[in-house]
Amino acid sequence: MNRPVKSKHIPRATIRRLATYIQVLEGLAQEGVEVISSNPLAEACDVNGSQVRKDLAYFGEFGIRGVGYQVKPLIDSIKESLGVDREWRIALVGVGNLGKALLNHTEFRQRGFNIVAIFDCDPFKIGEIVHGLEVHCTKDMRMMVDEMNIEVGMITTPPERAQRASQHLVDAGITSILNFASSRIKTPEHVQVEYVDFFHQFYTLAFNASQGLNR
Amino acid sequence: MNRPVKSKHIPRATIRRLATYIQVLEGLAQEGVEVISSNPLAEACDVNGSQVRKDLAYFGEFGIRGVGYQVKPLIDSIKESLGVDREWRIALVGVGNLGKALLNHTEFRQRGFNIVAIFDCDPFKIGEIVHGLEVHCTKDMRMMVDEMNIEVGMITTPPERAQRASQHLVDAGITSILNFASSRIKTPEHVQVEYVDFFHQFYTLAFNASQGLNR
Repeated sequence: MNRPVKSKHIPRATIRRLATYIQVLEGLAQEGVEVISSNPLAEACDVNGSQVRKDLAYFGEFGIRGVGYQVKPLIDSIKESLGVDREWRIALVGVGNLGKALLNHTEFRQRGFNIVAIFDCDPFKIGEIVHGLEVHCTKDMRMMVDEMNIEVGMITTPPERAQRASQHLVDAGITSILNFASSRIKTPEHVQVEYVDFFHQFYTLAFNASQGLNR
Repeated sequence: MNRPVKSKHIPRATIRRLATYIQVLEGLAQEGVEVISSNPLAEACDVNGSQVRKDLAYFGEFGIRGVGYQVKPLIDSIKESLGVDREWRIALVGVGNLGKALLNHTEFRQRGFNIVAIFDCDPFKIGEIVHGLEVHCTKDMRMMVDEMNIEVGMITTPPERAQRASQHLVDAGITSILNFASSRIKTPEHVQVEYVDFFHQFYTLAFNASQGLNR
């Protein structure tokens, strides 16, 4: 059942849908569903059945012809293939409102994304305890990233501070950054940056509503 | 300069990139840049030049051959075409940590997405003032949506409450919903839902890091 991933070149759009599949499949598992065929899975995820079958084909053979996919083994295999079947230790930079909200978002930890250290450059915030973690000065980042085996950086600063935050993370040896600040950042080629931008969804809603597509 | 949008069928992926172009172009405008050619714009947005030219072609002719794009007129025309050159009035449902963080996110208002009413079903929260807005009971939603000309609903409840929140919004006549809760919701066909899901970016980071793609 747990064959390794077929190809290293899984398209970004597929990974996006896999996140949705995991979300839906975990809901189904909680409801006690053991087997699901591709069409109802597709419907719950708002994609078409052939797309689901194609996406899941990247991960070997989970389906049983004429029966469907076994929910729990499918969740486990997708997670294993994506590398999210283990803990990822995260440093968060920028302990403002958004940072605090995300610190309190219990789903991160449940899904293995564990914020273990938090940083800010505001001297009034340093030393404060937020959701059980002490706010550290950004100059301590290099040492702490090393000591705490941190692999991922999360930027939740105001937009004008994001570039500096990313510089601290890169200097500390971080090569994977998730940027929640609404500005682009420049990093060396060996560093990957993913942007979380709420506005494209707002723009999509506004565009479709303007065009009368949802009437 | 301000020709109307060529086609109603702008692909989702294009709208996503347009959000990035606006972000980068607004940064350039603030720095006093008046004209930019497609290649440096493409580089700042992490896409290729021909993609930028193709995307912007949906919006008529903004470019001056051999010179580049005029930054401010381009921003204005993209916004006009997307329907984000005006105010959109929003009801937020779920005044927890995430809801509060987003209420404090001044960029929403700057970009015309104005949260004007907030709702929760927790009797201990009703009546509380959060960032200048009073928390209302969800049973007041229908009346307030009508009176306040609210067009968009934003769901920031825990995942298990999202379906109920969406039901309240739909009953109040809302046809555009932005769901920040990490669960899928079912709505009638005339209602469009956009999901803001942080996890696919986490999964992409984790997958690439596991594959050693950023070493």
